[in-house]
Amino acid sequence: MRLAILGAGAVGRSVADLAGEYGHEVVALADSSHAVVDESGVAVADALGSKDAGDALGSSDPADVFETDYDVLVEATPTTLGDAEPGFSHVERALTDDRHVVLANKGPVAERYEELRALEADSAGSIRFEATVGGAIPVCSTIEDCTPQSVTAVRGVLNGTANFILTRMAAEGLDYEHVLAEAQDLGVAEADPTFDVDGTDAALKFVILANVLSEGGFSLEDAEVTGIQNVPGSALDLAAEDGRTIRLIGEATREGVRVGPRLVPENGALAVTGTRNIVQIETKNAGSLHNSGRGAGGPETATAVLSDVGRLPSL
Amino acid sequence: MRLAILGAGAVGRSVADLAGEYGHEVVALADSSHAVVDESGVAVADALGSKDAGDALGSSDPADVFETDYDVLVEATPTTLGDAEPGFSHVERALTDDRHVVLANKGPVAERYEELRALEADSAGSIRFEATVGGAIPVCSTIEDCTPQSVTAVRGVLNGTANFILTRMAAEGLDYEHVLAEAQDLGVAEADPTFDVDGTDAALKFVILANVLSEGGFSLEDAEVTGIQNVPGSALDLAAEDGRTIRLIGEATREGVRVGPRLVPENGALAVTGTRNIVQIETKNAGSLHNSGRGAGGPETATAVLSDVGRLPSL
Repeated sequence: MRLAILGAGAVGRSVADLAGEYGHEVVALADSSHAVVDESGVAVADALGSKDAGDALGSSDPADVFETDYDVLVEATPTTLGDAEPGFSHVERALTDDRHVVLANKGPVAERYEELRALEADSAGSIRFEATVGGAIPVCSTIEDCTPQSVTAVRGVLNGTANFILTRMAAEGLDYEHVLAEAQDLGVAEADPTFDVDGTDAALKFVILANVLSEGGFSLEDAEVTGIQNVPGSALDLAAEDGRTIRLIGEATREGVRVGPRLVPENGALAVTGTRNIVQIETKNAGSLHNSGRGAGGPETATAVLSDVGRLPSL
Repeated sequence: MRLAILGAGAVGRSVADLAGEYGHEVVALADSSHAVVDESGVAVADALGSKDAGDALGSSDPADVFETDYDVLVEATPTTLGDAEPGFSHVERALTDDRHVVLANKGPVAERYEELRALEADSAGSIRFEATVGGAIPVCSTIEDCTPQSVTAVRGVLNGTANFILTRMAAEGLDYEHVLAEAQDLGVAEADPTFDVDGTDAALKFVILANVLSEGGFSLEDAEVTGIQNVPGSALDLAAEDGRTIRLIGEATREGVRVGPRLVPENGALAVTGTRNIVQIETKNAGSLHNSGRGAGGPETATAVLSDVGRLPSL
């Protein structure tokens, strides 16, 4: 497949790097200000090297990307809430032009799910979004394969930053502010960690899952969300005395989405450690499936994008 | 899709029961002696009720199944080793007739993998076999989606009977013979439990995975296999003192397959309990993915068959 990649952050650049390994070709790659376009295949390393050296990614305008002969638009621009722009318009343009779209950008899928599906219905292209939930962990495709109708709930840990912080607080008896600073030094938490620690990032993912289960109907504002900023070290000590710990747990059902710190058994499946994520998919006929792994990271999320590309039919 | 189901044991009958829920139709269902065939859709409950009452499943011959207008042959007859007959011939017939095949029968996939792929290459039909490894747990499809070339190893617990026995021996301090009898009473172990306790069942699954990673080249006789029959209760006590336990662990790499009892951390991912199974898929770009769930059972395995049916292209 010929890929046009919007976004040259950690995910976009990893998709560009790994595309060849999966048998695909990059014909366009854009960041917010520039683009590099080559119908015979972009020289990815050169373009990224240029950007890393402080020069432009390429000499084209990002809008030029839509004029290339691509099969799949990879939407890997930063997640935005509410109207989910400009991501939503990117998806709309590609589907209107009868191309496929694979999203790593959570915004359109969480906030305007039904509109996306309506655009898809009128298009020869399909949308896929495994990369929006749980990085490398197969979540959406697992639900798709066992059919959404047979899934009753999805529960789990889907934010590695918050999970890392809680793991370290419990392990070292340190307080939140201290561990947050450590996480930022390690690059596990961003300079502005708000969406990770206040539960928004996890909530967006569980909203996406609720939309998959119910074929739409949910957006971020429907989720009940509590973050980890007010979890005191003492709560973790108390939990430990009872063989428990605390994790930021989310749940998506057909009734809605809830995200918040919860007590979980210390050695149970939900007590994943460090930045690891886990989903528990509850099914009608097959009990509970647990998938865990790396929920974030450039290469990790890129593998989910490229898995999705592999499942698209030829146009 | 129109399904022709060979095998009316736990898996075959569950596929027949659940097919409608997944949007598919059963046009033929056969056991070893009889078949029921109906191009407008078999009355599954009636046919199985008849069989359960001691009468014939239907009035047709099993061979008649191949004459029906089906899209997918579901091969759910008992696993046989070596020449994997009659299962292999069933698969050969369907592919020769340009139909799809979904296997729950491990024999052909473990013992004659390259021949299956050669038949598939000459056919308009495709073969899929998620149900041969890990019941409801997505294993083959996960490897397929991240591409086999990016997987370096697959490790895990893939036999629920052996895992149940070891779990109970450790939990209750009972010896192997005692717990095996308990497992048979519960229906977790069969009257003849040999393949479960001697590691053969797990080995077949890891051989299938090694074939997927290497595009063939392995059969059961290539696997190094040790079962659990000689694990003494004292070994589990000793392990517990060190925070460990024992599980029947298998591993498939491009070098080969090994199955045997291993020490694992008591609270680690591989120490699944009861009849639960787990696979750890090691990847080049995305770290380690862990998928766990119910590795056996009629409905559980049927969901894997029906997932595969859902991923087949129209003929």
